[in-house]
Amino acid sequence: MSSDTPKKLSSKKVENIIFCVCLFLFQVVMIILYSVWVRYDKDSNHDPLPNGESPVQEEVDNLYGYFRDVNIMIFFGFGFLMVFLRRYGYSSLGYTFLISAMVAQWSVLVWGFYDSMLEHKELREYYYFTMESLLNGLFCAGSVMISYGALLGKVTPLQMLFMGIVEPVLFFLNMYIMERLHAFDVGGGMTIHLFGAYYGLSVCWFLTNSKAKHSKENAASYSGDLFAMAGTLFLWMMWPSFNAAIAPRGHPQMRALANTFLSLTGSTIATFIVSRLFSHYGYKLDMVHVQNSTLAGGVVQGVMAHLNVNPGPAISMGFIIGSVSVLGYIFLTPFLARRFNIQDTCGIHNLHGMPGLVGSIAAVIAAAHAINNPDLYSAAEFKVLFPAGDDQAKRNAAMTFIALAVGIIGGIISGFCMKQIGKIGKLTKEEYFSDHAFWVVASDYPKEFEGVDPHQY
Amino acid sequence: MSSDTPKKLSSKKVENIIFCVCLFLFQVVMIILYSVWVRYDKDSNHDPLPNGESPVQEEVDNLYGYFRDVNIMIFFGFGFLMVFLRRYGYSSLGYTFLISAMVAQWSVLVWGFYDSMLEHKELREYYYFTMESLLNGLFCAGSVMISYGALLGKVTPLQMLFMGIVEPVLFFLNMYIMERLHAFDVGGGMTIHLFGAYYGLSVCWFLTNSKAKHSKENAASYSGDLFAMAGTLFLWMMWPSFNAAIAPRGHPQMRALANTFLSLTGSTIATFIVSRLFSHYGYKLDMVHVQNSTLAGGVVQGVMAHLNVNPGPAISMGFIIGSVSVLGYIFLTPFLARRFNIQDTCGIHNLHGMPGLVGSIAAVIAAAHAINNPDLYSAAEFKVLFPAGDDQAKRNAAMTFIALAVGIIGGIISGFCMKQIGKIGKLTKEEYFSDHAFWVVASDYPKEFEGVDPHQY
Amino acid sequence: MSSDTPKKLSSKKVENIIFCVCLFLFQVVMIILYSVWVRYDKDSNHDPLPNGESPVQEEVDNLYGYFRDVNIMIFFGFGFLMVFLRRYGYSSLGYTFLISAMVAQWSVLVWGFYDSMLEHKELREYYYFTMESLLNGLFCAGSVMISYGALLGKVTPLQMLFMGIVEPVLFFLNMYIMERLHAFDVGGGMTIHLFGAYYGLSVCWFLTNSKAKHSKENAASYSGDLFAMAGTLFLWMMWPSFNAAIAPRGHPQMRALANTFLSLTGSTIATFIVSRLFSHYGYKLDMVHVQNSTLAGGVVQGVMAHLNVNPGPAISMGFIIGSVSVLGYIFLTPFLARRFNIQDTCGIHNLHGMPGLVGSIAAVIAAAHAINNPDLYSAAEFKVLFPAGDDQAKRNAAMTFIALAVGIIGGIISGFCMKQIGKIGKLTKEEYFSDHAFWVVASDYPKEFEGVDPHQY
Repeated sequence: MSSDTPKKLSSKKVENIIFCVCLFLFQVVMIILYSVWVRYDKDSNHDPLPNGESPVQEEVDNLYGYFRDVNIMIFFGFGFLMVFLRRYGYSSLGYTFLISAMVAQWSVLVWGFYDSMLEHKELREYYYFTMESLLNGLFCAGSVMISYGALLGKVTPLQMLFMGIVEPVLFFLNMYIMERLHAFDVGGGMTIHLFGAYYGLSVCWFLTNSKAKHSKENAASYSGDLFAMAGTLFLWMMWPSFNAAIAPRGHPQMRALANTFLSLTGSTIATFIVSRLFSHYGYKLDMVHVQNSTLAGGVVQGVMAHLNVNPGPAISMGFIIGSVSVLGYIFLTPFLARRFNIQDTCGIHNLHGMPGLVGSIAAVIAAAHAINNPDLYSAAEFKVLFPAGDDQAKRNAAMTFIALAVGIIGGIISGFCMKQIGKIGKLTKEEYFSDHAFWVVASDYPKEFEGVDPHQY
Repeated sequence: MSSDTPKKLSSKKVENIIFCVCLFLFQVVMIILYSVWVRYDKDSNHDPLPNGESPVQEEVDNLYGYFRDVNIMIFFGFGFLMVFLRRYGYSSLGYTFLISAMVAQWSVLVWGFYDSMLEHKELREYYYFTMESLLNGLFCAGSVMISYGALLGKVTPLQMLFMGIVEPVLFFLNMYIMERLHAFDVGGGMTIHLFGAYYGLSVCWFLTNSKAKHSKENAASYSGDLFAMAGTLFLWMMWPSFNAAIAPRGHPQMRALANTFLSLTGSTIATFIVSRLFSHYGYKLDMVHVQNSTLAGGVVQGVMAHLNVNPGPAISMGFIIGSVSVLGYIFLTPFLARRFNIQDTCGIHNLHGMPGLVGSIAAVIAAAHAINNPDLYSAAEFKVLFPAGDDQAKRNAAMTFIALAVGIIGGIISGFCMKQIGKIGKLTKEEYFSDHAFWVVASDYPKEFEGVDPHQY
Repeated sequence: MSSDTPKKLSSKKVENIIFCVCLFLFQVVMIILYSVWVRYDKDSNHDPLPNGESPVQEEVDNLYGYFRDVNIMIFFGFGFLMVFLRRYGYSSLGYTFLISAMVAQWSVLVWGFYDSMLEHKELREYYYFTMESLLNGLFCAGSVMISYGALLGKVTPLQMLFMGIVEPVLFFLNMYIMERLHAFDVGGGMTIHLFGAYYGLSVCWFLTNSKAKHSKENAASYSGDLFAMAGTLFLWMMWPSFNAAIAPRGHPQMRALANTFLSLTGSTIATFIVSRLFSHYGYKLDMVHVQNSTLAGGVVQGVMAHLNVNPGPAISMGFIIGSVSVLGYIFLTPFLARRFNIQDTCGIHNLHGMPGLVGSIAAVIAAAHAINNPDLYSAAEFKVLFPAGDDQAKRNAAMTFIALAVGIIGGIISGFCMKQIGKIGKLTKEEYFSDHAFWVVASDYPKEFEGVDPHQY
């Protein structure tokens, strides 16, 4: 490629050296901190061996199935969802893979730190980690993957590395505040989706430039769309597990599963209606909507899937948010790009931002409703579901604003730093949305986009 | 495209408006009926909170894992299995997704209605739905997806919508009759596979025309075949869960898992033998067989996987039906298309029709055998497995005919209606087996098939 | 194709007839032996029906989830991992599918035979098989799939058939010896990975020839790489289940899950560092490494994931072996091909050979450490984890050598036989790494590789 001047090459090499050194240091620090501070669960060593009755086995039996499902969502689901771009499949899968693995490690320590503060433990004591610590790591990785969705195609590996280290600190700050506030957020509607989306959009504001906006490679391919549907479907199918993983066992867990599933069917139906209603030529469906807005019903249940909301309202919530999400893709995403210079590649604002916000508000309403209708829950259940008691609605409202604020402010600071970092190994115009910038590509790697008319049919 | 006359466009637009209005009305009716009639399980609200000991938690722990697996089969498995066509991937995945989501919602109500009749409950009372209700919805969606397999490439969205509403009513009619008859059908061999296949074939008879039969786009692509194998493999791997999901716990569930798995290995081996024996040039394997006939061993166990059939016979059943299924693809499918004008796109007759029928007959024999050999089962187990007692073989034989009859008669009526509906937004010759009829396609959407010789090698 | 001379055709037809006859005989023998010898678990028939309390139900509840995950790894994971080749997708998926299904059947009998010897049972008695028998079958299939990785693109179906019958006999010989020695190997680090890799490499030595080494079709395609990543990710996500499936319940199982997961994150991070450090142009990532070396962290935990190794060391092990694995791909694989004439298509030496060996050695060290530090385990736990007591380190060391020796000697004998078998239906130069040798291919099957420069970017 004629633009591969020696200067560019050398900038990419510098980026590489810094990337490798930082990632290596990250890993060494992880190993040291884990070695001196993290241990398996307290009774790990001196238990009499279990007959399936030990508490740790119960934890494994109850949680590991959900852990596995969420694992599939983070690594396979998010990874493949982003493969729709015609020339960016390696990067979508590769960076998702690396950054999620990093975040999973890093999260245990970050949350360990906040958790020790919550429990007033000295940091000199060992931190005993459990299946739930690992699950939290996956949730945090989910949040980072959501943010990545807005940046897809516009980042260098080094920028991703930076975000993978910084964003978890903010993610768990939110979780820490939430614990202090006694707000509830069963499937991470506030802490994962709302925070992740607005963090990503804020960062995106710094990384959107005219080269990215005018890149012809920001386009789907036919087989890429099929790969993306594999991601979509696994996210869709596993979403009930996502929202129910840490729900209190019993009825709340059952409701979390069923409400999420029903809500997802609602958003799927809404997607097909609205996508066709506002569609090309007046009758054609759009794959972008099917890949994304069908999932909005899972996000909108993110805060309150486990509450005593009946099946009817659960479907309604999915239906409404699915419609809103498609409208967002049609009207809002181009508007944000044009007016605010925020080029949201995957449309995370439509899939995570708005649904997360609506879900958070719905949870405030549901909490207020529960407080005023004491017969909705038994006393014991009320206590478990609403840890802040009569103050619950206010606490959750506060937490919604905090999640949003931490996301936006953190995103602005991160975005500013990432913009500077992006100068190292800077992407040329042809490298936006293209794997060849940082990957050895196969011989049938798609040729440069020549403006083929996608509307020939 | 020169054939895009204004007239055609306007017909497609009319189809779209009717589609959107009907789907919207469907969703509104669902929300209203769910809101007034459906509630979570009875004790949902006033239980003392569970310590993992509540009945609802037991239901979640026992059933949710199977639900998740069946979910993967319906949405991912069936969806991707149909992606083999070179130009029909969006439609295969999209309609599967939409219709299955619809059916999952609709099923709860339809079964609720029949179930209330069974239990002599007044419809004014709430219907309390459980994890099993949702699972039934997935089973019903499986049945609709089977029928869809015969129609692949020949339908408009509006026709699919009609089928998604009508077929569940017949599916649950079968289940209702089965409950009344006390027939058994652990993995839906009769109610899902046999019914679904003959319903689909009957509808197919109405929708097969010369445009469909002479379409050059009814052809696989290389990457499409790989995607389809992902569907095949997930169906194959999850099939033990499908047949064991509602098996009585204990030995019956264990046998359902193991018999299904062993039977699947048998049909896989048979597929490779028979595919090569009757193959092109005398030695070449055919992907169509590998994608489909390998699964016949799961279908054939659909009625009786949980019975006390030993591992040897289970493998034999899979082996025989796998052979039959491949022979069906080679000889019967072309014959049905030529002589009876039934163009069975996915070959559901070979994968679901014949294996379902053979499995149903095998179950009758197994029941008769059990009745005459009292030492095969303990008294308690006999009572659970054969609810009709000494009458079981006759009841299951009757149910086989009923499932077949409901499928064929229902399919004829539905097919007649769907043919009329198909006049709205009628498919042109170039739109058969082609996404561009109803989807915005990517720029690398495969060009029109030019009769490249697939036998060049 | 001009090289399709009648002579070649007839040789392929002969291969086909022998293949079909052998596979048919295999299946008939299986059915006979299963029918006369294998039964479901002893109490299968005369139990009072369970209230979720029967031992068989407990087995299902505890094991089936892991069985399902390992099932996904064997059929989907290994199958798709090998789809990276541009023209060999059908074969990768097809042979994986067939051979794994065969091995799953065959394993129950082979292990039944050794197991009866271990238990001093007469073969005239029924062999009662359980969920664990089936799981062992999948483990054995994993071993065969590993070996297949080295041979990918260089074998005829008949050769694969031979290997699928012979390798399990050796695999279970290893397991038999291990049981006698009381060595431990929780995730098959020695018996699956180490044995499978060196068996495959030994066979590979016989099958590597200049036609294979100079084939231009031994190259990845862009979409093939994306498919392969689906295989990689499912292997990665399910690996904790693989290593924990038969771990003693309680803390050992929890540690097996967590150590494996953490180790995998370590090898993932290492892969990205080392791949870039030694990379093309000094800054480009290589998909081959991401597809394979990321998994090395799971292999290295194969022997000892369940021991009381803390999280820090688990990450370190993954990080070190991930680095070694990438270096193996860069330096060792070409060296083995050039100097030793072992063309290891998938690089199984880097993914299974070396990590298996390192993991085996680490287990010897861990056992020695445990023996010298009695406070690491409670007495009860020590007894379960180290069945050979104070002799454990020596026994595991011995087993490492035995696994290696059985693999290499067995591989040499098998390779010699397979080379002779390969003369039937011999692959021509153009048929190496190409589906059209034994499959009917779709019309868009990639054209012959014309030496397009993969480094154009």
